Amino acid sequence: MALKARALYDFNSENPGEISVKENEIVSLYSEQDIEGWLEGSNSKGERGLIPASYVEILKNDTAPTFNNNSTSGSRYANIPTGVTSPGFAAFSPPVPVQQQHGYQASQGSDEDWDEDWDDSSTVADEPGVVVGGNYQGDFDGNGPSTYRVSTSTSKSSNVQQAKSSATVSRNLNRFSTFVKSGGEAFVLGDAAGFVKDGDKICVVSGQYGPEWQENPYPFACTIDDPTKQTKFKGMKSYIAYKLTPTHTQTQVNRRYKHFDWLYARLVEKFPVISVPHIPEKQATGRFEEDFISKRRKGLIWWMNHMTSHPILSKCDVFQHFLTCNSTDEKSWKQGKRKAEKDEMVGANFFLTISTPSGPPLDLVEVESKIDGFKAFTKKMDDSVVQVNATTNEFARKQITGFKKEYQKVGQAFKGLGQAFELDQQTYSVGLNQAIAYTGEAYDAIGDYFAEQPRHDVDPLMDLLQLYQGHLANYPDIIHVQKGALTKVKESQKHVEEGKMDAPQADGVNERCNIISFATLAEIQHFHQVRVRDFKAQMQQYLTEQIGFFQKITGKLEEALQMYDNA
Amino acid sequence: MALKARALYDFNSENPGEISVKENEIVSLYSEQDIEGWLEGSNSKGERGLIPASYVEILKNDTAPTFNNNSTSGSRYANIPTGVTSPGFAAFSPPVPVQQQHGYQASQGSDEDWDEDWDDSSTVADEPGVVVGGNYQGDFDGNGPSTYRVSTSTSKSSNVQQAKSSATVSRNLNRFSTFVKSGGEAFVLGDAAGFVKDGDKICVVSGQYGPEWQENPYPFACTIDDPTKQTKFKGMKSYIAYKLTPTHTQTQVNRRYKHFDWLYARLVEKFPVISVPHIPEKQATGRFEEDFISKRRKGLIWWMNHMTSHPILSKCDVFQHFLTCNSTDEKSWKQGKRKAEKDEMVGANFFLTISTPSGPPLDLVEVESKIDGFKAFTKKMDDSVVQVNATTNEFARKQITGFKKEYQKVGQAFKGLGQAFELDQQTYSVGLNQAIAYTGEAYDAIGDYFAEQPRHDVDPLMDLLQLYQGHLANYPDIIHVQKGALTKVKESQKHVEEGKMDAPQADGVNERCNIISFATLAEIQHFHQVRVRDFKAQMQQYLTEQIGFFQKITGKLEEALQMYDNA
Repeated sequence: MALKARALYDFNSENPGEISVKENEIVSLYSEQDIEGWLEGSNSKGERGLIPASYVEILKNDTAPTFNNNSTSGSRYANIPTGVTSPGFAAFSPPVPVQQQHGYQASQGSDEDWDEDWDDSSTVADEPGVVVGGNYQGDFDGNGPSTYRVSTSTSKSSNVQQAKSSATVSRNLNRFSTFVKSGGEAFVLGDAAGFVKDGDKICVVSGQYGPEWQENPYPFACTIDDPTKQTKFKGMKSYIAYKLTPTHTQTQVNRRYKHFDWLYARLVEKFPVISVPHIPEKQATGRFEEDFISKRRKGLIWWMNHMTSHPILSKCDVFQHFLTCNSTDEKSWKQGKRKAEKDEMVGANFFLTISTPSGPPLDLVEVESKIDGFKAFTKKMDDSVVQVNATTNEFARKQITGFKKEYQKVGQAFKGLGQAFELDQQTYSVGLNQAIAYTGEAYDAIGDYFAEQPRHDVDPLMDLLQLYQGHLANYPDIIHVQKGALTKVKESQKHVEEGKMDAPQADGVNERCNIISFATLAEIQHFHQVRVRDFKAQMQQYLTEQIGFFQKITGKLEEALQMYDNA
Repeated sequence: MALKARALYDFNSENPGEISVKENEIVSLYSEQDIEGWLEGSNSKGERGLIPASYVEILKNDTAPTFNNNSTSGSRYANIPTGVTSPGFAAFSPPVPVQQQHGYQASQGSDEDWDEDWDDSSTVADEPGVVVGGNYQGDFDGNGPSTYRVSTSTSKSSNVQQAKSSATVSRNLNRFSTFVKSGGEAFVLGDAAGFVKDGDKICVVSGQYGPEWQENPYPFACTIDDPTKQTKFKGMKSYIAYKLTPTHTQTQVNRRYKHFDWLYARLVEKFPVISVPHIPEKQATGRFEEDFISKRRKGLIWWMNHMTSHPILSKCDVFQHFLTCNSTDEKSWKQGKRKAEKDEMVGANFFLTISTPSGPPLDLVEVESKIDGFKAFTKKMDDSVVQVNATTNEFARKQITGFKKEYQKVGQAFKGLGQAFELDQQTYSVGLNQAIAYTGEAYDAIGDYFAEQPRHDVDPLMDLLQLYQGHLANYPDIIHVQKGALTKVKESQKHVEEGKMDAPQADGVNERCNIISFATLAEIQHFHQVRVRDFKAQMQQYLTEQIGFFQKITGKLEEALQMYDNA
């Protein structure tokens, strides 16, 4: 505990695990190593907990500040489009260390890289060296199809793992940094600026249930047909292309997984309070090639369904470029790509494009209560999605292994009885022997039915759950952007009272927070609507499949029973 | 190996494990203790194996015969109704030690004992101190009904154990003694004698498939209604009485388990080559009283069904006395009881009552081939019945525990999802939330269906299997009686060639062996016919129950699906 640091600003803890410090307070640190921008230590009151790394400078033996040299006002926001001009607010927004920049920035290569990527990959999947494992393989006894539920064992690999990570909704160490990164802070502080074209306008309207995104007046859908292997350079290079056909153009385009990946990165960057559906996980190739491609396609269909259902995402330029640009016209593709990557209406500027319904601003207390309610909702939904996922996954595994085995053992036992009875040469027993043999086969078949069933009902359900786990993992960040804005409003009121800020400036903060609140509530409303739509459809499909399954079993047993009529 | 013995007669080994000895040959014995009438030792040729205990006298140090003093010709057959008059044949039929008399003799008490029994028992079941255990309790996890499949853990306890003991069909050390005990030997040797009344006549006829028992011209059935607690002596004594109503009298009589037990002992004693169905196992009382009584009743129904289906058993006096004697008329019951216990037409004399179809005698080679075929059949049927029993027992256990648990876990997961969704107060999601909650309940109910199902299909199947395991345990003895008779025929032919027997005497042996063969084949034919009838009916019932079960599940899921129509 020799490691000491000096607080550069006041920090008021807001969550369990955080500790408050005053400017110039000397704190003890357990380690110089930050955890996602936070340092562990104790303050002068002896309270132990987390302090934003950017709020302190570590005091080395020579007591000279050797850390956070770039954390002086102004320079430490270098990674944000606009500078911070209000030191009073900065105390609530520790900056993000540079190494924690958004993970998807890596996808934004140069055009040269892109061309390289486009042409140079001959693997079916786009990622090398990922170990393939089956979800059910825990105590897989070899009776089920070995290709079942292939997924990677790397980060975000299994649904359960992913769900667990998204289950930590209530404890997000990046609370502040999200607000900053997203541009939320810059926008609220009035530092976002850009020219908003009419086409960029995004409208929030007052709907039956509160703020809603204005519906896309030209709704469309997009099919994704079975992918095919494409070749280039006289067959020297090959890759898998998915055939996309949007209903509004009726023109098929070919897209590879990496194009989806690139698009996803653009969308995440552009829309700070919109939950962009996650694209299917990156997976390895291997001997399960067909299963893998089929599974990825299903994931992409779910993804596409959510994209085209979303009033804002469905209309945006980069998505339209992705859907409509001729796959073979590389020049026009590059132009659209460059334009998207140079889009100025991203992050903080996105909020500039939002127009709210006319009328009074939202009641902040009501907004906060709604957001808190939604936070509790996502937490509980996340828990139960994890539960349903784990349970149905285990249920599927049991059907593939145990259930199948039990029914087939019954089948074998009946077959054995039929064989024993065949030793009796009496003519009057021939019919019975055949009927018993058929009964044995029926139970054998029923065992197979059980093993085959999960791919018809559990798998689609799990695909849906996976998509929603992605959304649930997005929401903490979205909530934090809104919460950050609310905090700014409260602070501005305080500063006005203290005479540190004039009223018009505070009104501007209020107004801009109001925009963020409208957008967030509209997005939450959209989430609930598609959630109800999707889960209703999926539960209906699940039950319909289950009914068909038990009817198939009944049918098989009825066949067996009929055999005894002539026995 | 100091223990020596002298062979009293020639013995020619016929089965693996036996060794041959000549009269006066000195053999070494491993022990003075016989195993079911056999001694282990080695002959003068150094061959090791089994020798009938009654064929040797053990030579003690003083070389005086101190063992088998009663095994000299004439006196050693004291336990057989008639003396052995043909020493030449005796060599093939070692007598049975007295301690091995038929186990059911113990049931034949005096009238005083009977009255004592009749009046003095106040327990519900008739046997004390038997530990109760559940068939499925191996790794019973407490989810199933704890009263399930109660059975005793004593001898002949579990079906599997019983089946295993009956599975040792091919190696019966009592081969000879069964033949002797049953009276088969005495009859074949012409030593059975008695006055056969017309009413005692048992006819074997030539049927479509070979020898058959003549059908009972007055077939009847008998219902067993739910037993009631009866009291005597102003309520001081109580017992459980089963209400029997035979269709040919339409008069209800009350019978206790011990009456069934007494009757069973009479039947086994009387009919050497008829497979008397086993009565349900003796069981303990306990907190599962109702289940226990219900299970015993089901077993007695099966037993009764087989009794009334059998052309010979159904007609016999002791059974008719049991079915028709007024339960409250103790005097007339005692008379019938005494008469049955003094019946002379039992064992050897039973064969005197049999009349065979007119025409040529059976071809002995063909008979032997049929008997061998049936022996192989029973062996294989026994194996497969053990298998079906063990498999369905395990299948039932899995349904009660694992299957139930899996479906209810799915139900819980769906319920949890519905509860999470209820946190969202949107009016448009109420229907979905209710539908998901109902789906959860449906899977919960399906779990219960799985747990309840075995008592509707597996249990009746297992009851049938248990009855047949009893028959399969009877057949080795029946086969040995017939085989013993065949051996006598072969020996008589040899003795005629050797001039030790005259032709008319040998013809008599042939003729009497022919009667035993007719009876045995008639019994085998009857067995096949009821087997085909019973298994056909039971498999139909099983499948019908299974179909109903899966339809019930389907119905429940359809109800759940309909909930989404208004969601």
